[in-house]
Formats: sequence, structure tokens, C-alpha cells
Amino acid sequence: MRNNRKNLELRKIEIIPDFIKNADASCLIKSGDTHVVCTASIEDKLPRWLKGSGNGWVTAEYGMLPRSTHERMRREASVGKVGGRTSEIQRLIGRSLRASIDTQLLGEYLITIDCDVLQADGGTRTASITGGFVALKKCIDLMIKRKQINHNPIKNYVAAISCGIINGKIMMDLDYEEDSKADIDSNYVMNDKNQIIELQLTGEKTTCSETQFLEMMQHSKKSIEEIILIQKKVFSA
Amino acid sequence: MRNNRKNLELRKIEIIPDFIKNADASCLIKSGDTHVVCTASIEDKLPRWLKGSGNGWVTAEYGMLPRSTHERMRREASVGKVGGRTSEIQRLIGRSLRASIDTQLLGEYLITIDCDVLQADGGTRTASITGGFVALKKCIDLMIKRKQINHNPIKNYVAAISCGIINGKIMMDLDYEEDSKADIDSNYVMNDKNQIIELQLTGEKTTCSETQFLEMMQHSKKSIEEIILIQKKVFSA
Amino acid sequence: MRNNRKNLELRKIEIIPDFIKNADASCLIKSGDTHVVCTASIEDKLPRWLKGSGNGWVTAEYGMLPRSTHERMRREASVGKVGGRTSEIQRLIGRSLRASIDTQLLGEYLITIDCDVLQADGGTRTASITGGFVALKKCIDLMIKRKQINHNPIKNYVAAISCGIINGKIMMDLDYEEDSKADIDSNYVMNDKNQIIELQLTGEKTTCSETQFLEMMQHSKKSIEEIILIQKKVFSA
Amino acid sequence: MRNNRKNLELRKIEIIPDFIKNADASCLIKSGDTHVVCTASIEDKLPRWLKGSGNGWVTAEYGMLPRSTHERMRREASVGKVGGRTSEIQRLIGRSLRASIDTQLLGEYLITIDCDVLQADGGTRTASITGGFVALKKCIDLMIKRKQINHNPIKNYVAAISCGIINGKIMMDLDYEEDSKADIDSNYVMNDKNQIIELQLTGEKTTCSETQFLEMMQHSKKSIEEIILIQKKVFSA
Amino acid sequence: MRNNRKNLELRKIEIIPDFIKNADASCLIKSGDTHVVCTASIEDKLPRWLKGSGNGWVTAEYGMLPRSTHERMRREASVGKVGGRTSEIQRLIGRSLRASIDTQLLGEYLITIDCDVLQADGGTRTASITGGFVALKKCIDLMIKRKQINHNPIKNYVAAISCGIINGKIMMDLDYEEDSKADIDSNYVMNDKNQIIELQLTGEKTTCSETQFLEMMQHSKKSIEEIILIQKKVFSA
Amino acid sequence: MRNNRKNLELRKIEIIPDFIKNADASCLIKSGDTHVVCTASIEDKLPRWLKGSGNGWVTAEYGMLPRSTHERMRREASVGKVGGRTSEIQRLIGRSLRASIDTQLLGEYLITIDCDVLQADGGTRTASITGGFVALKKCIDLMIKRKQINHNPIKNYVAAISCGIINGKIMMDLDYEEDSKADIDSNYVMNDKNQIIELQLTGEKTTCSETQFLEMMQHSKKSIEEIILIQKKVFSA
Repeated sequence: MRNNRKNLELRKIEIIPDFIKNADASCLIKSGDTHVVCTASIEDKLPRWLKGSGNGWVTAEYGMLPRSTHERMRREASVGKVGGRTSEIQRLIGRSLRASIDTQLLGEYLITIDCDVLQADGGTRTASITGGFVALKKCIDLMIKRKQINHNPIKNYVAAISCGIINGKIMMDLDYEEDSKADIDSNYVMNDKNQIIELQLTGEKTTCSETQFLEMMQHSKKSIEEIILIQKKVFSA
Repeated sequence: MRNNRKNLELRKIEIIPDFIKNADASCLIKSGDTHVVCTASIEDKLPRWLKGSGNGWVTAEYGMLPRSTHERMRREASVGKVGGRTSEIQRLIGRSLRASIDTQLLGEYLITIDCDVLQADGGTRTASITGGFVALKKCIDLMIKRKQINHNPIKNYVAAISCGIINGKIMMDLDYEEDSKADIDSNYVMNDKNQIIELQLTGEKTTCSETQFLEMMQHSKKSIEEIILIQKKVFSA
Repeated sequence: MRNNRKNLELRKIEIIPDFIKNADASCLIKSGDTHVVCTASIEDKLPRWLKGSGNGWVTAEYGMLPRSTHERMRREASVGKVGGRTSEIQRLIGRSLRASIDTQLLGEYLITIDCDVLQADGGTRTASITGGFVALKKCIDLMIKRKQINHNPIKNYVAAISCGIINGKIMMDLDYEEDSKADIDSNYVMNDKNQIIELQLTGEKTTCSETQFLEMMQHSKKSIEEIILIQKKVFSA
Repeated sequence: MRNNRKNLELRKIEIIPDFIKNADASCLIKSGDTHVVCTASIEDKLPRWLKGSGNGWVTAEYGMLPRSTHERMRREASVGKVGGRTSEIQRLIGRSLRASIDTQLLGEYLITIDCDVLQADGGTRTASITGGFVALKKCIDLMIKRKQINHNPIKNYVAAISCGIINGKIMMDLDYEEDSKADIDSNYVMNDKNQIIELQLTGEKTTCSETQFLEMMQHSKKSIEEIILIQKKVFSA
Repeated sequence: MRNNRKNLELRKIEIIPDFIKNADASCLIKSGDTHVVCTASIEDKLPRWLKGSGNGWVTAEYGMLPRSTHERMRREASVGKVGGRTSEIQRLIGRSLRASIDTQLLGEYLITIDCDVLQADGGTRTASITGGFVALKKCIDLMIKRKQINHNPIKNYVAAISCGIINGKIMMDLDYEEDSKADIDSNYVMNDKNQIIELQLTGEKTTCSETQFLEMMQHSKKSIEEIILIQKKVFSA
Repeated sequence: MRNNRKNLELRKIEIIPDFIKNADASCLIKSGDTHVVCTASIEDKLPRWLKGSGNGWVTAEYGMLPRSTHERMRREASVGKVGGRTSEIQRLIGRSLRASIDTQLLGEYLITIDCDVLQADGGTRTASITGGFVALKKCIDLMIKRKQINHNPIKNYVAAISCGIINGKIMMDLDYEEDSKADIDSNYVMNDKNQIIELQLTGEKTTCSETQFLEMMQHSKKSIEEIILIQKKVFSA
């Protein structure tokens, strides 16, 4: 057994809405010791290839504070470029969030979701998707209220979770220490209709049998149902 | 039905070994109109974190010639940085190829696999993995022959394929035109023991039901078996 | 008169210590709606020119979350370089904090203070200095406790405040809106012995008479005394 | 006492106008062994935020030849970015020079003042401001002559000087060697009405008492009066 | 004598047209073990300074695959900039190819010739010019066929060759090993009227007498005549 | 006829030695209105590939002040990279100057020659070579005097000149205006034994017959003899 948790148990998730006053919408999501600030920014400057199409777009950026990690990391600004891992994660967040939106109903707006990790303890990309969706939906609610949008473009809730295999045992929601010991690491992004949006499995240390994989997917599905309930509470409050 | 192919049929794969004379090992892989040069380079300069560990490493880089595509792309060298898509793909190739190697048996060598796309027609990342493995294995064979390595570090063959859903129909090995119309796009990296190494599914346009996903995985498994037979022929020739 | 404040009145300052678990020391400083996370990181990799000198060094870095501001700013990481304003501010924070330290007593350690602005409403550089000092002192206390340091290298407390002139009236601690209307803007960094460490006055819109300047300095001195009392409470708690 | 100079004595200042034939206006300023080329360039491409406002702008850039210093410095062009010190200095020069100009009377022109240090012996930023003002005023005179401008936008002369404390003694206009020994270093930018435009004091090695500071300011005021007389001679010649 | 060749003999040249299907025109040129892919891309986005002039432009870019060389080279994309040698070569190719074109007859099109070295064994820049001309002429032929152009803008054929001096002996078309031993290295670009377009001679190791130089030029003239015959065969086939 | 000059006449050349006090050696070279500062810097940090070889190296860098030209150019430092033209020129200067030196007699020193253009009116690269040689020789003389070197490594003087064809007429030493009208442009670097070091001819507008080229070379040879006399006067003074 792991630190105070059963193998299939998630860490405690807390979502504090309106964390950043200057943003159009925002939240702080805490998943155990992983803390991510998610903000939404509305712009009417669409990317060139969308201008005049009547459609909008949702994009995401991801960053880590230099001391969000155990060892201080160099700032990407002083390195002078966005690293490979960062760009991979922000592309994943962007695709995942766009899967919740009807871009035609959104109209010609660009919404940028910024996910900035204050403290990292594993699962920052899944927390960013889960929290990013909350910021996005709050932003859409605001735009509807302000009459910038007439029809709600939100098609479904979106949330994400990680699942790994350590010493042959399936464990949900790996923290940093577990993640570095995992043989198999996988991430699931699903909606509130149990449909798959993104699925990424990596077996660098060992490979994964089909049976193991199918079991992991079942557990992840259940976990995402739990997480979506927590997201929904933010909006019912 | 598609261009001269059944839905579950692969494009013709051709692997021409020793395509680049100056490299330690190399091949040109053609998968339909997608052509990728794969080279292997042995260096004894290990990354810092591996020095003295007794272990080796395999890494990969990926690039596209500016006119490998229908529209000319700007060179990343003149843009001044490696783009997000490129770095995502080269990280995937690296992880996939490392899953075929026992890095301890490799000893303190760094092998870099360069995958350069001469002509792109969809599936460049999976062709790079399939061809990259051939270059890697040829390189290992050379190192064994030169007595740089005593025990064969190759654990298994590795190959990759894409599978998508277009208008509700599952299709293997999408070409460029199909890829741009696909609702669901997924990539599978497996070994010759039918084990999963990497699995990536993206459902930006629509989401994917579990049933659909399981069916795609079965077809991909069969396709990878076919591809590994083609890889093996290169070595039995 | 201004928003709920007298001209010479400071905004409410709150310092929450240990805000980031992974850092060697940290705090969140809130000065009204300006919120800055300050972390301290101990490294034994000194800059080259200090190696073997027996002396240590304190340096600072500064960043803003993209949506800490009213309008979203582009990330410096994606712009590809640290901007002029950022580098000017981080050099100021570094010099100010080093003025609190006997680098010989510190011994051959590098301490990096990262100041990351979550929410900006004017005065981010002065809040960074005030909060950065708290993180630095907490870090030194930890190093003494761990016996990494034998003699306390802290020479004095350091804090900072801004003062401006708007329509001929001196106002302490400008918020964002006031700052953009100010004719004269100035920043003061002082220690708990009333000595000046850094002083910067800018009169782009109008120039400043000597008399006005001397009056501003007197008020700033008093404000800094107040702020140092708040810093001290963190350590007496 | 110092090298052939009394503590409050300035180095010999020489201003050679029209040093660069291709520029709209230019001078070479020599302050002892510190030699700076200042050029003015008129452009009608205003920064975006000023277009259509009817107002103009003055900006400054600063550079050092690689061997202007005792040890050869790497070129910022080959490092690939403008360093922190450079950008801090060019922002200071820009603000200082704008304080001499009524940007509304200037009309929709951008004037760029380039200050390039041929030889550095301390005080390059203050020499750049003093020489930069001469280039700016010569440029404005030309624009008036050419009828590009109808009303003179020059509000006042601007000049700058440094003042430091070494071993408890106040010294004006530090050269390189003195600067590296100084306990306190400060820079003053004032106009011909004795008003303060910019004031920067740094006490990294020791702190500065208020009394000391006030004395430094008095001496600097007198020095700037002297320097403005030298600037005026360029225009009366 | 050299490896299977007389001193004034060229390596075997092979030009395979239409090597890259996606390009507007292309060829693979092999000159011994030097293999270069040349593609032509038509764009109607002219550089700003040509817009509205009625004239077109031809430009060239050059790159080497990382393992085209004996030792693997770092990708310029990951170094983050185009190196000095690369930019020198691509400027040379561009100038040489423009000498074959009447840019007024071309009309407002930009043609970019990309020369990518698959395998390098000396003479990559001259092979790029010779092969680049073939791609350019094929592209022009296509534009005429498509009626994008009314009058043939090709003024003449263009080809290039290298010539060096090794141990006092003049040798044509140096391979990599010879090139690194050469005392004098020179490159000639000429047209089918025996006129000189570009001529570059470098005598870093020794200097070159006038007599030697004139002899080298005569041999190069003859070699270029031979090469142009090979180019012509591509179009008569 | 041209501006006050005969077609084969050079502009007035003036070489002012010791122009920059901080450099190991320096001069200002004026060739008409082209003014270039050349400095020499001795370092004992050799490039890696020369360490332990017993040999030294000479390298060159080239830059232009932003307003050395008629239109202000952007600084390469703010563009963030060294441009193609700059890197081509600095490579040419480096090769040319190394041709004057026996690198074995130089011993394990790196000498960097910086050529910075204050004012440009055509011929900046040839003036940089001519002036750069003077700085290099002065630097070598100093090293001999200081006994850093025992045997004089200077093999010969090196100088350079341009020659062009305008409307069918050969003209020496083109200024900016002539250069932009020239049909053929060529540069010659020779030593005091009439031997060719570098030769570059470009015929972008028209091509060049052999006869024309041979005549240009004869005139350039004579001009370089003249220039070397001027260089020699600097050392005999």
C-alpha cells in the first residue's frame, strides 16, 4: 500500500474559483500537493486561418514556477525557448479543452487557458485539464451573461486522470515519487458521457499487456466520473 | 472505400537498408508516398546524468525537409527553434526505440537515431519508429561485430502504425488526405510479443466510445505483426 | 482622495510563510491586490567567479504569470527572451537583497530568490523585495538550523515601497491605476537602520523639484519602518 | 586624492558634433577616456500604440564595441540577445531624453538615439545621456529647418553625471577603476532648471545615510550645471 | 594520382528528376558520393521590396541532414540558428541561380530552391547549384505549361565546379578527403556561354600565383561545359 | 567619369593607429567616407580543437553601428542573431588575416580582430581586412616586445580592394552609390608578394567575360601594392 491511500484512491481535489482577480475567469486547483492556477483570457484576435470563418478557438499554455519542483528548474524564459515537455503538455491541454466546445457556437473569439503550476507533485497535466475546464466554463458563463455569446457552446464536461503500474500493481493518480518508480504511465481525458477524448500510454520501463491496459482504462473511467462531480459542485455552489 | 485500398489494408512498405554511406547504420523507409531516411550514430559522449552508470542511451531526432509537404514549410533552423510538433514526435520515437533495448547491456554508448522526412503523406511518425528500429538494430549488429558490445541488448522488435475513424469507419494507416478528414486519430507502438509500448489516441473532432477504441486496437495489433515481418526480412536477407 | 485610502496610507500587507512546500523557504506576499510568490533555493553551484573565494551570493529572478495583468501578456518563454523590464527588476531585487547579507558569513552557497507575480496591481517590484527578504531570512534560518552556516549572515532587514506624485500630491504605495497617472514615480529600498540601499526616481511626465523629492523620501522612510514591523511579525510568530 | 583630479572635479568633456556623416544628427562625446558615438535617426514609422495620436516618440539604444573594455566582451549579437545591463541603460537613456521633449509638438515622428561606446572608462550611461541630448537637439534643429516641425518641441536641456562614495569620501564622475571600488554609486539626470529627471542610487557594498545622500545630490546639481554649459557651446558655435 | 580518377577528371554525375512528389519540381543530384535533393517551390508571396514591381525573385536555402557527414552534426534547428557556413552557401546558390533568370519575364512570383544534402563527400555547394538549376528550369517549364508565365525567363544554363591544388597539382572536383588536404580551394559558377557568374578562391594554407589561378580557370571552364551537357540530357530525355 | 576620381583611382586611405586605448592593439582606417575601427585582443583561451597542438589562431568579427548606413539598420543584438552577410564577411576577414601568420610560430594564443564600421560608404570588408592587418601586426609586435612570442609569425602583409564594372567600365574601389549600380562586383585579397589569398567575383546583374576579369585582376594587383605601402608607413613612423 501507498502513503495513506488505497491503490485506486484519488488524492483530495480542491477547486478554488476566482483565484486571480484580473483574469476573465480563473481557479486554483489542488490535487494533493499539486497546485495549478488556471486562468481564461478572452481575445477577439483570432489566429489568421480562422478569421472570417465564424468559428472561435480555444488554446492553452502551460508553465511551471521555477521552484514548483523539488530541485529548482531554470526558467524557460531565460533558457530562451519553450521546452519539448512543456509544448507537448500545452498541446494536449488545448486539444482536450477544445473537445468540450462547439467552436461554431463560440463565435469569433479566442479563449486562452493558462495553466501555471505553483507546486508540482505529479499529475500536473491532468490537473491542468481538470482545472482548465473549470476556468473555461466559467469564462463561457461570463460571455453568455455579457451577451457576447447567444448559445452555450459547452458540449460536455472534460476531466483527466493518470494511472500507472508499479511492481505489477495498478495505481490511480500517481504522485511525483510514484511516477518516477512507475513501469507504465498512462493519462486519460474523458467527458461526462464516458467517451474518450485523449489517451496516452507509455511503457518505457516495461511493456504493457492488453489485459492490464483494459483494467487501467476501467479504473480511470470511474475516477473521471468522480472528478467531474467535483467540477460540477463549483458551478452549483 | 478509399484510393485503391481496403479500409484495413496497409500501404506498401519498402525498407532500403544502408541508404546513407556515412552513417553507422541507416535505411530509407517508404510507406506509400511517405519516405523517411533513418540513420544511427554511435557516440561515446553520454548525457551527464548517465556517465559512470555503466548504462547507455538511445535518443531520436526528427525533421522534415521544407518541401516534403504539399505547401513549403519554413525550416526550423531559420525559425530559430524546434517546434512543438517536432519535439513531441522525437520524444515519442526515442521512448519507443528505448523500449527495444536493455540499456545496461548496451554499455556506455549514446546512439542517436535521426529520422528525416523526404516526402510526407501521413504517418511520418509511425514510419520513423518502424524505420528507426531497423537503423538501430543494424547499428547494434555492427557494434557486436566490432566487439564494442558483448551481449546483444536488443530485447524485441518495435514497430508502429496509425489507425483512424472516418465517417464512422475504422481505417488503418491513414494518408495525409485521410488524416485531415479523420474524426479520431490514434497511433500504436508495439513489440513482437504483442505488448503495448506507446498508445496515443486523439479525438479532437469527435469523441471515441470504448467499443470503437477496442476494435481499433485489435486491427492495429494485426497490422504491427505484418510490419514486423517486413522488418525481419531486412535482417534475413 | 483615493480609493478608500489616505494619500500617505499603505495598502494592507499580508505575508503567508511556507506557501510553496517544495522550496527551501517561501512566502506569499499580498499588498492589496498585488500578490507575489517568493521562494528561496539553496544551491552549492556558485557562479564561476566566486568559486574558491569562500564567499556566497544571493541572486533574484522575477516573472509574471501571463494573466497576472488586466490584459494577458505573452509569456517571455514563448517570446524567447527575458524582457528589458523583467531584467531590470530582477537586478534591482538581487542588489537589494544582497545588501542584507554578509556574503562571507554565508559561505560558498548560492541562494536564488524567485519572485513570481500571481496578480499585479502596481508595486510588484517593491512587494518582491519585501517578500523576497522574508524568504531569504527563512532560508538562512533553515541553513543555520541544519548547521550549513555557523554565523548568521543577515546584517539587517530590507524592505521597499513606492511613492509618487499625482496632480501635485504625494501618494504612497501606488496601485496600477494610480501608477499609470503618476507624474513622478519613485521606489525606495531601505534597511531597519533607516539607511538607503536603492533609490530610483523617474520623472518622465514632469520633472521633480528637490523639495518635493525630499518630502517623498521622508514619507517613504516612515512607510518602510511600518513594513519592516510586518516582516518581523512573521519571524516572531 | 585621485589621479590628477580633485574629488569633486569632473573629467574633461569634449563634444565633437557631426561625427557620423550618414546620420540625421550625431556627435562624439569624450568624457576623459570614455568615448561614445551618439546618432539620431528620424523615422516616420511610429510604434503601433502611437499611430494616429498626433504625438511622436523618442527612444534610445545602447551598445558597446567588444573591445571598448579592458577585457574583450562577447558581442550581444553572437550571444543572441540584449543583456540585462544594456536594456536597463537604454531604457534609462530613453526616459531621460523624452523628458526634454514635448512629444505633441514633435508630431508623428520617431527619433531613435543610438549611443555606441567606442572606449569605456566609467560613466558610459551618463555620457550617453549628455551626448544623446546633443544629437537629439541637433536633429530637432534639422527638422525645424526642413519644416518637418513647426514649433520647437525641446522643453529644456538634459545632462547627467555620476557620483560615488569611496572610503567615506564623495567623488564626482567616477572612472572605471574608482567605480569598481565605490561603496555607493549614484547617477543623476537633471535639466537646466535644476529639476530632477532620473535619480538612481545603489548601495550594494554599504548603505547610505540620508545626510550623505543629500550632499551627493548638491554636488551633482552643480556638476550638471557645468555640463549643460558645455552642451550649450556646441549650439552657439 | 587519386582514387580511380585522373587529376582533371570529374566524379560521375547522375541527375534523377522528379525525386520529391510534393514539390513543384525536384531532382536528386549525385556527384560521386555527394547526394543532394533539390526542390523548387512557387509562391506568390513576394518579398516586400518587390511587390508591385512586376518582377519576380529566386532564392535558395541549403541544409545538411545531421548524418550526411562522417561525424554527426548538430541540427541547426536545435542549435537555434542558421550557421555562418550555411548562410554563406545559400546566398551563393541564390545569386548563381538568379543569374540564369530574367526576373522581369518571371513576373511576380517567388521561387525558392531548397538544396538538402543527404550525403556529403565534398562539393555540396557546387552540386547544389548544378542540381538547383535543374529544379529551377523544370519549375519554369511547369509554369509555362500552366500559363503562369508567357515568355521563358531562362537566359542560360548555370552549373558549378570546384578546383583545388594539392601538393602543387591541380585537381578538379575535390572529394571530402582531398578538400581537407587542399592548399588552394576554388569554386566556379559559369553559364553555357562560358561567362563567369561567381568565382571564389581561398588560399588559407598557401597563396596562389596568378599563373596557377589562370590554369585552374581554364580547366574549370571545360568541366562546366561537360556538366551542362549532363543537365541538358535531363531535359531532352 | 566619377565623383572627383578617375576610374582606376583609389579613395584616400588614412590609418590612425592606437585609436582605442583599452585594446591590445588598434587602428581607425578611413577609406574615403568608410570608417572602420579595428582592434586586436589576445586571449590564451584557444578553441578546443587547437588546445595542446602548439598552434595559435586568428579569428575576426565584424559589425556595423546601426547608423553607419544611410538608413538606420536594426542592431543584430536585438534581432537576436548574426545575419548572413555579417557572418560571411567575418569569415572572409578571418581567412585573409590567417594567411599572413604562421600559426605555429604564434604559439597557443588566440587573437581576435574586431572590425566595427562607424560609417559605411562601400568597401567595408576590404577596409576591414586592410585595417585588421595593421591591428594584427601591431598586436604581434607587442607580443614580441613582451616576450610572449619568440619568433615573428608574420609571413607577409595582407591588404584588399574591390573592383567593379559599371556600364562596361572597370572602376576600382567602389563607393556605396557605385556599388549599387555595378554590374560586376569583385574583391581581391593579396599579399606583398603579389600572391592571391582570396578572390570573389559576383556577376548577379550581368555575367563577366574572361578578358574583363583578367583586366580587373591586373588593376587590383596594382592597387593592393599601393595600399600595402600605406600600411608599411604606419610601422615605419
